[in-house]
Amino acid sequence: MAAMARAVVCLSLCLAVSQVRSSHIPAEMNRTIQNLLQHYSISNKDRFNGKPVFSREPLTGKMEAQKVFMGGVLESYEKLFGHMLKELPTPSPQTAESNAADAAARTDEDMRTKLSYILRQVQDLRRHRYQEQEKLLQNLQDLKHIKMDNPVVQSKALWELPWLYEEASSLSDNIIKQRRRRRQARRAKTRLGA
Amino acid sequence: MAAMARAVVCLSLCLAVSQVRSSHIPAEMNRTIQNLLQHYSISNKDRFNGKPVFSREPLTGKMEAQKVFMGGVLESYEKLFGHMLKELPTPSPQTAESNAADAAARTDEDMRTKLSYILRQVQDLRRHRYQEQEKLLQNLQDLKHIKMDNPVVQSKALWELPWLYEEASSLSDNIIKQRRRRRQARRAKTRLGA
Repeated sequence: MAAMARAVVCLSLCLAVSQVRSSHIPAEMNRTIQNLLQHYSISNKDRFNGKPVFSREPLTGKMEAQKVFMGGVLESYEKLFGHMLKELPTPSPQTAESNAADAAARTDEDMRTKLSYILRQVQDLRRHRYQEQEKLLQNLQDLKHIKMDNPVVQSKALWELPWLYEEASSLSDNIIKQRRRRRQARRAKTRLGA
Repeated sequence: MAAMARAVVCLSLCLAVSQVRSSHIPAEMNRTIQNLLQHYSISNKDRFNGKPVFSREPLTGKMEAQKVFMGGVLESYEKLFGHMLKELPTPSPQTAESNAADAAARTDEDMRTKLSYILRQVQDLRRHRYQEQEKLLQNLQDLKHIKMDNPVVQSKALWELPWLYEEASSLSDNIIKQRRRRRQARRAKTRLGA
């Protein structure tokens, strides 16, 4: 029985340590999200319908690709929180209000503070750690605005194709070569270590 | 004079060899593009206005990021050629036509063949060498379709945030650590070589 208790204590300790080690989310942020969830409540059936808003599948590939996708996720969160903030009723300028209206206004103000705080946290992470990805996402977005029915654009794109096709082919060659080199280096290291 | 001639011959030979070495674009493709450009002709002033359709700036960063952008460029070319093909007049079913109309129909048919060939080349490169990037671009595209005004989506996104924020923070940590390890390995290699 004592051994069992020791094991449970040990397991809890391990879990606590690993959580402290890996935790990047500020306690206040976590608490604020839990608070907001009380307001933005949905049924368990809706929550666990097996369709997450953000697919986790792209977060299993190559690290750089994962970062690009994560940059997109953070961008979406910024838009979403901006949207949710706009949906909150604007504070009314009247002073003589009923108690109920007063309480509702206070709740809205509290929601606004909380949402703004979470938005800032997401913005900070994106601005400080996802700048390169932000630039790339902007470049990809610009591609969506190419005027495909414009004769000047059509001709210029045709003109640019030989260089880009060449570049696209050699780029994928380079990546294959780079991977091969890394694999060989790893093998050499293993042989040396053996 | 003879030395000069030898130098010119040598230079031309070097250029020819380096072109053969680095050339990934099939001669037929290059020829077809030049032919199409005679049809899709614009003034030099328009062509060289300093605003290329595809920015080359994203093709100077990290290789994986370059490949993601290039995946987007190839996707845009596919759409553009699809668009240009649709713009060509559909072949008319009449048989008794004037000579002029007949010639125009032949030109259109020729254009269609050429555009379809270029489109296939781009598609092949994309399907065979840019599959991973295609998937990532699709995942990024899906983010644009998130229904931001849907209460279920808002609540689920809030619920998913702690895990994603944690992941986004540790992902950027990992990349910094990975770069540091590579830098150290390079330095160690240089020291060993010295």
